[in-house]
Amino acid sequence: MKKKLVNNPDDVVEEMLAGVVAAEPDRYKKLKDQNVLVRADAPVDKVALVSGGGSGHEPTHGGYVGPGMLDAAVAGDVFTSPTPDAVYEAIKAVDSGNGVFLVIKNYTGDVMNFEMAEDMAEADGIETAHVVVNDDVAVEDSTYTSGRRGVAGTIFVHKIAGALAAQGASLQEVKEIAEKVVANVRTKGMALYPCRVPAADESTFSLEENEMELGIGIHGEPGTERTEVKSADEIVNNLVTDVIEDLPFSANDEVAVIVNGMGGTPLMELYIANRKVNEILGAKNIDIYKTFVGEYMTSLEMAGLSVTLLKLDDELKELLDAPTAVDLLK
Amino acid sequence: MKKKLVNNPDDVVEEMLAGVVAAEPDRYKKLKDQNVLVRADAPVDKVALVSGGGSGHEPTHGGYVGPGMLDAAVAGDVFTSPTPDAVYEAIKAVDSGNGVFLVIKNYTGDVMNFEMAEDMAEADGIETAHVVVNDDVAVEDSTYTSGRRGVAGTIFVHKIAGALAAQGASLQEVKEIAEKVVANVRTKGMALYPCRVPAADESTFSLEENEMELGIGIHGEPGTERTEVKSADEIVNNLVTDVIEDLPFSANDEVAVIVNGMGGTPLMELYIANRKVNEILGAKNIDIYKTFVGEYMTSLEMAGLSVTLLKLDDELKELLDAPTAVDLLK
Repeated sequence: MKKKLVNNPDDVVEEMLAGVVAAEPDRYKKLKDQNVLVRADAPVDKVALVSGGGSGHEPTHGGYVGPGMLDAAVAGDVFTSPTPDAVYEAIKAVDSGNGVFLVIKNYTGDVMNFEMAEDMAEADGIETAHVVVNDDVAVEDSTYTSGRRGVAGTIFVHKIAGALAAQGASLQEVKEIAEKVVANVRTKGMALYPCRVPAADESTFSLEENEMELGIGIHGEPGTERTEVKSADEIVNNLVTDVIEDLPFSANDEVAVIVNGMGGTPLMELYIANRKVNEILGAKNIDIYKTFVGEYMTSLEMAGLSVTLLKLDDELKELLDAPTAVDLLK
Repeated sequence: MKKKLVNNPDDVVEEMLAGVVAAEPDRYKKLKDQNVLVRADAPVDKVALVSGGGSGHEPTHGGYVGPGMLDAAVAGDVFTSPTPDAVYEAIKAVDSGNGVFLVIKNYTGDVMNFEMAEDMAEADGIETAHVVVNDDVAVEDSTYTSGRRGVAGTIFVHKIAGALAAQGASLQEVKEIAEKVVANVRTKGMALYPCRVPAADESTFSLEENEMELGIGIHGEPGTERTEVKSADEIVNNLVTDVIEDLPFSANDEVAVIVNGMGGTPLMELYIANRKVNEILGAKNIDIYKTFVGEYMTSLEMAGLSVTLLKLDDELKELLDAPTAVDLLK
């Protein structure tokens, strides 16, 4: 028996979704025969938002289903893109005739399968649009990606596009605000310890006892650098500096911050990291409008963190602050 | 350098609290020269609630400071009771003349130091009272405890006593409701992997590659049994059965549930566990009123979980549902 809280490794996604619905039966329903969670009150008379991807990144994406954020989340197998069929069923379940907007993290399989699902839905007369999130500044191409990877910045797309959709915006308006978030959000991550995939015999990668990896992806894809372990301040300085220089973020910009745990990082360490994020941004006169510290997009029990910055204007601030029933991003 | 996101291991608590205040400056203030977080608007004209204990259990207790829950949280060093002085300063900072109620987890050092702080405050004319939480059914005495340990059930005491205090109840009434929660709440935990304490060279305990420990404490104190790793369903069955038989919980009881991750457990696995919790309670006709799945009281990056059941009546349900500004237990 693998040293994890699982039963048959083949059943982890299905059993997880059963546990989610059991915990909050008034919030979720699961589609029959598909690993898709939808709002219990779907379809709602507005543009619907659908996201998804491989499992193992919880609370991404099921944890963001609810009023003011997503209408459905499609759960693939662990670290595996969901099938076009599953995405298509999600689209049909939440469409109210106002169109469906898909938030896709930039992984080759996700982009391909979500676009195939769009074709299937369009053939049914359902209007769709999508955005591809590619916020990871670390590497240009990677194991599963052409172009930059989509990581924790995706949560800001869920929140802000979800808020605009809840206000009754059109599919085109939702697409435009999502693109605006993508244009203004950047992330970089790192890992100290790898995760253990339920069905695999080994970790997806390994690190020596005094080694860490900067720029790593949320499936353990290669990053930019393997080095000996540095202090929290040095690590955060590396991540934040690369994020700032990429957009670039400048003095007097207002930003929202996510200090995101990869799953096996104590909350204590995320707050130690946030102290340094705050100090670096302060020294550069970049104003912090709002900070989120916690586990937003994980990689099973990988130990490590990512730092996300989103450059804000009045429109984005208002939507970021808009009410949502989703605890994690209130 | 230790393989953790820390700087100097001696500074972890102070740097963590700085990071907490940096993340939510409108919610928290930190007492000068003490590792105490208080509500930004303290003192509030009501009975004040103070809790605390060793650090390393985040979000316990700082994460529960806010309207409807705690007025102050005292953070000791990692896995070390806070000093009487620190608790005394917390009491003084939040007292509005209506008295201060202390929620103490049952560890010898915590009980002693909180009671000494009460004596100091009473000498100043501040009225105090306390409850000792001892919800862990696993063992009677343990490394740091005489009697049962106080673990994740403490969160229900914060929530329910906090709600009653927010409604303007007296110190005596707050004490009585806290005692009622303690009388009706039970927990049992387990671990697959130990945690790594920042200042120590080794883990607090070790487990073989195919070994787990049932009934373990939140500092890695000995539990009831070391066995080879079992399936999630078997593990949950062990925990829930022992919890149910202890009170005992019976058919037609209504309960609130916490499926609590110890820090290094993927959320996926907590939901897999919750599926089984739900199934076992359903088979016994114990009604689930509300379920919380997540990290509520951790042990740094220990991998494992605990299951808490609280038997409810109408009064407890109303207070559990009362509004709070604390996201984690809304």
